[in-house]
Amino acid sequence: MEEKKIFDEVYDLCMRAKVNSAMLSRARTEVKNRALCTFARLLRENASVILEANAKDLANAAENGVRDTMLDRLRLTDARIEGMAKGAEDIAALPDPVGKGECWTRPNGLMIRRIRVPMGVVGVIFEARPNVAADVAALCIKSGNAVVLRGGKEAIESNRAVVSLARRALAETGLPAEAIQLIENTTRASSEALMQMRGLIDVLVPRGGKGLIRAVVENARVPVIETGAGNCHLYIHADADPEMALKIAVNAKISRPSVCNACETILVNAQIAPAFLPMLKAAMDEHHCEIRGCERTREILPDVTPATEEDWDTEYNDLIVAVKIVDTLDTARIHINRYGTGHSEAIVTNDLAAAEFFQTSVDAAAVYVNASTRFTDGGEFGFGAELGISTQKLHARGPMGLDALTTEKFLVNGSGQVR
Amino acid sequence: MEEKKIFDEVYDLCMRAKVNSAMLSRARTEVKNRALCTFARLLRENASVILEANAKDLANAAENGVRDTMLDRLRLTDARIEGMAKGAEDIAALPDPVGKGECWTRPNGLMIRRIRVPMGVVGVIFEARPNVAADVAALCIKSGNAVVLRGGKEAIESNRAVVSLARRALAETGLPAEAIQLIENTTRASSEALMQMRGLIDVLVPRGGKGLIRAVVENARVPVIETGAGNCHLYIHADADPEMALKIAVNAKISRPSVCNACETILVNAQIAPAFLPMLKAAMDEHHCEIRGCERTREILPDVTPATEEDWDTEYNDLIVAVKIVDTLDTARIHINRYGTGHSEAIVTNDLAAAEFFQTSVDAAAVYVNASTRFTDGGEFGFGAELGISTQKLHARGPMGLDALTTEKFLVNGSGQVR
Repeated sequence: MEEKKIFDEVYDLCMRAKVNSAMLSRARTEVKNRALCTFARLLRENASVILEANAKDLANAAENGVRDTMLDRLRLTDARIEGMAKGAEDIAALPDPVGKGECWTRPNGLMIRRIRVPMGVVGVIFEARPNVAADVAALCIKSGNAVVLRGGKEAIESNRAVVSLARRALAETGLPAEAIQLIENTTRASSEALMQMRGLIDVLVPRGGKGLIRAVVENARVPVIETGAGNCHLYIHADADPEMALKIAVNAKISRPSVCNACETILVNAQIAPAFLPMLKAAMDEHHCEIRGCERTREILPDVTPATEEDWDTEYNDLIVAVKIVDTLDTARIHINRYGTGHSEAIVTNDLAAAEFFQTSVDAAAVYVNASTRFTDGGEFGFGAELGISTQKLHARGPMGLDALTTEKFLVNGSGQVR
Repeated sequence: MEEKKIFDEVYDLCMRAKVNSAMLSRARTEVKNRALCTFARLLRENASVILEANAKDLANAAENGVRDTMLDRLRLTDARIEGMAKGAEDIAALPDPVGKGECWTRPNGLMIRRIRVPMGVVGVIFEARPNVAADVAALCIKSGNAVVLRGGKEAIESNRAVVSLARRALAETGLPAEAIQLIENTTRASSEALMQMRGLIDVLVPRGGKGLIRAVVENARVPVIETGAGNCHLYIHADADPEMALKIAVNAKISRPSVCNACETILVNAQIAPAFLPMLKAAMDEHHCEIRGCERTREILPDVTPATEEDWDTEYNDLIVAVKIVDTLDTARIHINRYGTGHSEAIVTNDLAAAEFFQTSVDAAAVYVNASTRFTDGGEFGFGAELGISTQKLHARGPMGLDALTTEKFLVNGSGQVR
């Protein structure tokens, strides 16, 4: 009974988003940009209101014994609110993806235009970070999409404050406030209901940890874009410059271990291993990073923890790295294509044929030669704002910019043609 | 127990397709084209073998009381086999989608290439038409994808004959025959197993009737491209040229009622209805097409069957058309966006603002002004071969050419860059 009521509530919010999406989808770029700048201004003007709401969330979370890393994600500060405002302004400055396209005329005189149009209604399920609400609202305004947000229960007060400002920004610009909806019920039933909204939700994006993403991918009955899982590898080829290899290994593992483009396993060619592994060990020790090695690695580095099958499959998101010695480039390829999540993979080599083989045959969104996996990022690729990093092959792959929130449409104009 | 065995068989075929996809994905265009021309030659040389296999299918089907329309789809003739061979040659003549892309250099010197690559392994579930096996095999060879085919039980002998020739064509060209797999078990369990092959099947395309498509969309755990459902509308605006409107209405409904881009409901503006509807009735009578009309339509055409709510929702695929009188363009838009399947929608009008509003606000893959919905087709749009018509918004929308069988990949080359 309760679930039926929650389903109906979610249905109602999605329907309101859909009805109001039509007007937003036709809005001119200058009007959408004005709404984004208004949103930025309102965020700044109402920073204290947001911080007050956030304080309630933090107090509730502390009471419920939420762990510190989660509290950190939940916490807003003046700097983080300024970041949200700046983000909205940055998105206003990006080119509008809507309306771009190509056109041609068929021999029978039909003029065909193939143009990008908004998806319609975007659904986003996220966890404790309230800045996601602001980022996603801004991306959806710019791409002309209505959006239904379903955030975690920890952040409900903060999300409510942020979303109400986004809606005010639309209203003040003459756009429909109802195009942005927040599901205030944060039980599991509400996110399950959102996953069932066929015909109302055009695409659903889960933003958060592995558990959330898996639950959405497995249960959704609406189209999903899978993001974020990154079991990334670095392969040190026999023909690698050891200094470059070390610099890249340290950066890929250490610079920010908690993110999806960080490296989790280093594969080392057997020929270079005796020289390279002691250097790697010294550098990882210096950064307090644990190495888990295969048997052959442990012949060279006897002190490191033995790696198990599970290690090859694990995205540590921590100061731990698995190390495996392989005899050939092809063994490295097979390992990566078996255990990788299709995110970012890198080779260090000065051998042209090896580099080309690696880039052609490793199946991932981004494949690097002589650079760190950490560059897989919308900003680093030059796309501006980023919705996430797609690890699927359908629709969008790799860093997703505003384009990923659009689809295409064929407009065909004739003068009475029949077939 | 039996289901477990079928699951394992399907898993094994998918795994073999995946293992062999790597080599096909790297094959040069000229080699893939040679395989396609070899396939065409083998189809022609072995026409009698295919016809013999097809005769067995037809005999079995007749024994099992299969209805005539199904027998017609199942039946191969010399002309249909020549069509399959010609289709493979046409696909050889199309440009290769693989390897196309763009590249740029970032301020830090990283050179990024964003190129189209094969999906990997494509799954296709289809019904009784054995030419689908040949078409899909040819499209997958050209786009560098391995494919796992699961056809209907009625066509199993024909499919086996066609697929064995496609595999021979690969082998004779030095490409891996195992990149094309046919699931010979045609129980429901085998198609259900195929829908569960996460990590092995990169995209699954159902080709067939509404029931098949719905079953795949609802049950698949792998990415799906939804094709084919077409509840298409024609709106006759007050400002339409009645002669043009009539010509388009007759073409859209009558020229081939069984296909997805045929028109199912005609919406007529109230102002033009008294003049237009009698003309429409006469033309439809001439073509033995039944009209089901709303109440207001029946005030003008008292003889027609009353339409029910169900009619607005029905893709007849037959010589039946629903007719409804609407007062405004916006009412037409609301009706279309509610009952349409997002396939093809058309307006007949000489009013510029009405045409623009219709094209902007109707949510469908193809939106026409003054032309028949029947043009939504890969060939008519100039794309050459067609995999189907996508009615979803993710990945591909409208007629899908070879491009829809590719994804993208970022190749990033550096000289030691770290972040």
